[in-house]
Amino acid sequence: MSDIERLIQSFAKLPGLGPRSARRAVLHLLKRRETVLQPLLQALVRADASVRNCQRCGNLDDTDPCGICGDPRRDGSCICVVEDVSDLWALERSGAYRGHYHVLGGLLSALDGIGPDELRIPRLVERASEPTVREVIMAVSFTVDGQTTAFYIAERLAGCDVRVSGIAHGVPLGGELHYLDDATLATALQARRQL
Amino acid sequence: MSDIERLIQSFAKLPGLGPRSARRAVLHLLKRRETVLQPLLQALVRADASVRNCQRCGNLDDTDPCGICGDPRRDGSCICVVEDVSDLWALERSGAYRGHYHVLGGLLSALDGIGPDELRIPRLVERASEPTVREVIMAVSFTVDGQTTAFYIAERLAGCDVRVSGIAHGVPLGGELHYLDDATLATALQARRQL
Repeated sequence: MSDIERLIQSFAKLPGLGPRSARRAVLHLLKRRETVLQPLLQALVRADASVRNCQRCGNLDDTDPCGICGDPRRDGSCICVVEDVSDLWALERSGAYRGHYHVLGGLLSALDGIGPDELRIPRLVERASEPTVREVIMAVSFTVDGQTTAFYIAERLAGCDVRVSGIAHGVPLGGELHYLDDATLATALQARRQL
Repeated sequence: MSDIERLIQSFAKLPGLGPRSARRAVLHLLKRRETVLQPLLQALVRADASVRNCQRCGNLDDTDPCGICGDPRRDGSCICVVEDVSDLWALERSGAYRGHYHVLGGLLSALDGIGPDELRIPRLVERASEPTVREVIMAVSFTVDGQTTAFYIAERLAGCDVRVSGIAHGVPLGGELHYLDDATLATALQARRQL
């Protein structure tokens, strides 16, 4: 196999890239050595050397503790529990949260044989037991595994002196009622609030 | 900027990847250091070191002359002229061509100020003058710039003892007549053949 084909195959393994877009990306790189290939290469080498999981919250960053855990302006009394780093990134982009996080690294799943010890749940219980922590917000997917995980964690935290909450479920922004699925509509109706 | 953000920005510069898919790809890489990140890194380093343009035809390969120019089983009497390496790859995938290629590296364009000297046209004239070459096939896009380039090259090759041909234009495979544009239909009608 030629070096070009090997490079295309490596790119084609990334999510969102098929063989066709991998070929396009590789050709783009090989035609722009100085401006695209070299910067990408250096960024890969640097990130590979520096990025690791934060020992405290599980976030990926080039410092440990991560930039969020180490930021004194953030509210350490509140921990937002997410499944994955990508969820943490999504919440950060929303700009709506200024507390700390805890990345589980997955969800409980009887089907996939993922129990509490495969996730960062023991570390979360430790953190929630610290006297400074007052609230744990469950921000996990509104799926069977997500809700199972949320309720399991709420039970595990029952002994700690913290409030355990979950993000709201209902009609999303821009959601038109007649396009929404029945389950979302039923949830939104049940969780109705006084205006 | 953190090393992760820098890596995401490098990926987002590739064609077909936006900020969202770049984030997904980077997270995928950082979670799979041994199986995805390291192989990609090594493939990039190798390709960057080895891949160059073939001095003869302009193709990109890790050998010079390239694998096609150096293959004794291929027919050196026929040169297929293409705009870009991606077009060469497409023709190779079709499996329908067993001759040599010539990659122009672009098309003539008055608008973009691209003249014959910006492309590999002088080298093509040299090659077409070799006594072994009998046919030059123009396989360029069916656009104004593509056809301008094809006719310009045909004129430049008028002095050489070669047949200059162009790939056929007409209804594509699976093309339903009522969905085709007028220009394609008119071309297909004019270029009709005896059955």
